Amino acid sequence: MDLTLMGKAAKEAAFHLSTATTAQKNQALAMIADELEANSEAILAANARDIELGRQAGLSEALLDRLLLNSERLASIAGDVRNVIGLQDPVGSEIDSRVLENGMSLSRRRVPLGVVGVIYEARPNVTIDIAALCLKTGNASILRGGKETFYSNMELVKVIQLSLKKAGLPAASVQYIENPDRALVSQLLTLDQYVDMIIPRGGAGLHKMCKENSTIPVIIGGFGISHMFVDESADLTRSLDVIENAKVQRPSACNALDTLLVHEGVATEFLPRLVQHLGDKVTFVADASAQTGLSGATSLKEAQEGDFDTEWLSYTLGVKVVKDIHEAIEHMREHHASHSDAILTNRLDHAELFINAVDSAAVYVNASTRFTDGAQFGLGAEVAVSTQKLHARGPMGLEELTSYKWVGKADYLSRC
Amino acid sequence: MDLTLMGKAAKEAAFHLSTATTAQKNQALAMIADELEANSEAILAANARDIELGRQAGLSEALLDRLLLNSERLASIAGDVRNVIGLQDPVGSEIDSRVLENGMSLSRRRVPLGVVGVIYEARPNVTIDIAALCLKTGNASILRGGKETFYSNMELVKVIQLSLKKAGLPAASVQYIENPDRALVSQLLTLDQYVDMIIPRGGAGLHKMCKENSTIPVIIGGFGISHMFVDESADLTRSLDVIENAKVQRPSACNALDTLLVHEGVATEFLPRLVQHLGDKVTFVADASAQTGLSGATSLKEAQEGDFDTEWLSYTLGVKVVKDIHEAIEHMREHHASHSDAILTNRLDHAELFINAVDSAAVYVNASTRFTDGAQFGLGAEVAVSTQKLHARGPMGLEELTSYKWVGKADYLSRC
Repeated sequence: MDLTLMGKAAKEAAFHLSTATTAQKNQALAMIADELEANSEAILAANARDIELGRQAGLSEALLDRLLLNSERLASIAGDVRNVIGLQDPVGSEIDSRVLENGMSLSRRRVPLGVVGVIYEARPNVTIDIAALCLKTGNASILRGGKETFYSNMELVKVIQLSLKKAGLPAASVQYIENPDRALVSQLLTLDQYVDMIIPRGGAGLHKMCKENSTIPVIIGGFGISHMFVDESADLTRSLDVIENAKVQRPSACNALDTLLVHEGVATEFLPRLVQHLGDKVTFVADASAQTGLSGATSLKEAQEGDFDTEWLSYTLGVKVVKDIHEAIEHMREHHASHSDAILTNRLDHAELFINAVDSAAVYVNASTRFTDGAQFGLGAEVAVSTQKLHARGPMGLEELTSYKWVGKADYLSRC
Repeated sequence: MDLTLMGKAAKEAAFHLSTATTAQKNQALAMIADELEANSEAILAANARDIELGRQAGLSEALLDRLLLNSERLASIAGDVRNVIGLQDPVGSEIDSRVLENGMSLSRRRVPLGVVGVIYEARPNVTIDIAALCLKTGNASILRGGKETFYSNMELVKVIQLSLKKAGLPAASVQYIENPDRALVSQLLTLDQYVDMIIPRGGAGLHKMCKENSTIPVIIGGFGISHMFVDESADLTRSLDVIENAKVQRPSACNALDTLLVHEGVATEFLPRLVQHLGDKVTFVADASAQTGLSGATSLKEAQEGDFDTEWLSYTLGVKVVKDIHEAIEHMREHHASHSDAILTNRLDHAELFINAVDSAAVYVNASTRFTDGAQFGLGAEVAVSTQKLHARGPMGLEELTSYKWVGKADYLSRC
């Protein structure tokens, strides 16, 4: 199979989408939401088939639950699409408008990126989610979901394309790579003649594969060790709640706390209080510096090589006592701080030093790392979380699905 | 040779540069400018050696002139560095600052990208230019210039590193890959652990090679067919000057006009006037539709397959008569409009349609395509001209050498 035709169709659709009005795009979104509900029986039947096949293939109950759709979840997905209708369309807005000395009026006008390729795993809601966000921003999308939700995705894409046609927009605005052959993923990654951006949504392996094989710009994201540094000046009592939130609220999230660094001046007092506060919920992995302070913990392990480079995604917490803020920053530089990191301190100079020196997508003063999230940041939607530095960093909203063009208007003007 | 050490040193230098003050960075720039003048003898001697070797290798006089440094050119390069001192440092400025409902104050703060890899050809001024712009924005740079200016570049980098040390900044802030082995370019392109962005400055082949081999985000730029469409409603007399400017002012530039599209309603009147206006300066390459109108031209060729996909970079001009604005837009979509394109029209609806439908980095109404340029756009400096859609599009200034980090400050806040 050759994806060239799909690429061409997407680029053609993108041309039409780029000149569609916000009203047209919103109408298509409304139809998608309506059709999701109207076709719920067929969608749930397709999903049941995926679940059945997944069960036969021995998928874990946790994973099966992630794949599962039911009426309630489907209604919630339709609701998410209706929320996108309410978001502001960034396309067409102009930035840095000015009149040059020669009389030319010059602006940067926000435009769609064009064609977005999305490679994702597991959850079927991503199919609707990303299609809706791309549509809202006038981008065509080429989707490639995981094989675990093949039948669900087929049915969802059918509903999307039906809605697009009803709304008078090209069905090729949202296309899906049905063929399970993995070679097609490699092909998609080199379709640079037609595709403008690749968004991988999945684990570190998927991101690495895209980075290494794509000739199209890729949004790399997700991975990063999250740290919190308890400074000597921190309000220790209030720090306990913030640490608990960062570690325990949703340990499987990429912004959940991985490593706690504690100033040696407060470690003796603070670590036993931490053990008491977190109770049995957390397994501590501590290096020699923190063993004594944590000795009351139910579950305490000695840190091994690589533990401070591990994204736990579980109730495990790395702990290390450091001499001062400089050692804390040094530790973070060595151990992949890049996603979300926080300092707990009452010293203004330490807060500023931390903000400046820590090179992560999000840095916090006296707040939980769990805040790194499109909804929390008020972006209305989250396309991905980028940990690279080009284009967008941290949570990406609708604006990050756009580019800009320079628009110069003048009165028959030549360059001097 | 292994570039890993160079990458590590660059990342370490970038850490120091990211917290350097604007005053420190400006001081280093001032020293570079001074040292360029103080060491002019050694620099010109090294350049003379490059020129001599180039002459022996049979380089054209035009290319040799591009490579040549003399006191005047060196003074002008030093002057450019002093200009960079006067530009505003984008690092540290905050955008979209707001206070969230939960009380967190949230901003996006501009930060350096980190380490920038630059692969370029020929002209030695690029070495100083790019080093200065990276330094101003707090980025470390790893440079790889062409072999034709090897000795000049060695001397220039020596001067830069000397100045950096004098200014108390790490010498590794600007490094140069001396080894001529081409395998090192491939190695640089996969140094993603240390390098955050690759800027190729050179021809289409260099850009393609970087796109295909880099695991680091690349700024693709330069290539694109520039079009101008003379609408039926255009002021034909005034159009002549704009077309002349776009084609003749500097035909070797990437924003010079390649293809002129003329509305059939005015072709019979306009094309002979164009021939008369441009006189002997231009060779016309026209398809059948424009042959009659251009028949008075001294140099007129019939367009062959691929001619409308050719960036001429010379005094050649492709010409085609089209039925209307829609055919003009269709032609541009098929023939790589992506850099700079213009419409000459007095109709508002056509101006807006053109702006919206033409998917290029810069679109103009009644202005020459030659305006696509950092200096013309008032950016103060031009790092590169991007024709891709991620991160930056069109002329890139200092701001485009930065990323941002999210900064959240609160009072011991947990996520609900």
